[in-house]
Amino acid sequence: MDKSDTLKRLRNVEGHLRGIERMVDEDAYCIDIIRQISAAQAALSRLSSRVLNDHLHSCLITAVRGEDAADRERVLKEIGEVYELASKV
Amino acid sequence: MDKSDTLKRLRNVEGHLRGIERMVDEDAYCIDIIRQISAAQAALSRLSSRVLNDHLHSCLITAVRGEDAADRERVLKEIGEVYELASKV
Amino acid sequence: MDKSDTLKRLRNVEGHLRGIERMVDEDAYCIDIIRQISAAQAALSRLSSRVLNDHLHSCLITAVRGEDAADRERVLKEIGEVYELASKV
Amino acid sequence: MDKSDTLKRLRNVEGHLRGIERMVDEDAYCIDIIRQISAAQAALSRLSSRVLNDHLHSCLITAVRGEDAADRERVLKEIGEVYELASKV
Repeated sequence: MDKSDTLKRLRNVEGHLRGIERMVDEDAYCIDIIRQISAAQAALSRLSSRVLNDHLHSCLITAVRGEDAADRERVLKEIGEVYELASKV
Repeated sequence: MDKSDTLKRLRNVEGHLRGIERMVDEDAYCIDIIRQISAAQAALSRLSSRVLNDHLHSCLITAVRGEDAADRERVLKEIGEVYELASKV
Repeated sequence: MDKSDTLKRLRNVEGHLRGIERMVDEDAYCIDIIRQISAAQAALSRLSSRVLNDHLHSCLITAVRGEDAADRERVLKEIGEVYELASKV
Repeated sequence: MDKSDTLKRLRNVEGHLRGIERMVDEDAYCIDIIRQISAAQAALSRLSSRVLNDHLHSCLITAVRGEDAADRERVLKEIGEVYELASKV
């Protein structure tokens, strides 16, 4: 994983949230606040997607090619779990 | 994939949609219609999750263990894509 | 609500699901099945959105302008509920 | 809107993100990072839901009861828009 890029993106979302705090503090229009929260959530979704991608190209390959059947099963199950989290099953 | 189970679930959602059509036809309360549409969507999310699970335990294992690097990359990329679809990135 | 349009859209999704059943029956590629399920869900989201819009322009206006405080509160609460359903809070 | 409560919740999510940054920095397991991002997103969804609720009980009531048809239409349209944002139509 490109750690510094991930950290930078997380800090951007943090900055975004501080901007939303200012909006709330200055009594901004509710709908504008909701739109900004939604934009922050979308940035987090894109970030999750990148982290998953890195995971697939590293841990998953290692586990699936490895000899440890329990480890392989665990890794595959986790992919299913984060997919469910993403789709809020 | 347990094909007959998947087909049964798809037919259940189909039946659910026909029920919603009856509600619309009989002028049911809008909010009740929205709740039923949401339930049908949740059933489809659960189904996607099962199909993905089957895929991880068959095609993905084969591709990751295989010698074809392009095929492996394609399969990993597709997992990333359906994850994005699920999280509506 | 334009009832006939809503019914037409529901029947389209029903037809879409039957297409997915055929794909499953003919052992289509899992990822293609997931993509089609996702497209059906998106069509249902658009439909919910239209039904909500009709609701806002009819029942909600009547309830908010009416004298019955309990009814008004119920209608507002329901909007909050379907919003939560949509965002899978 | 209970401004101080909203601000407190936003700061909590900010703190959550800083925790995720530490996880990334310390090379935590990708799946655990994804789970934490998902939890932060859920907290933001709950917050949006509260902001919308406040909006419905204030601006929406005022606009729907008011005499300005364009203003009423704008407010109703915005509810539809944030609903679409939430359901990622």
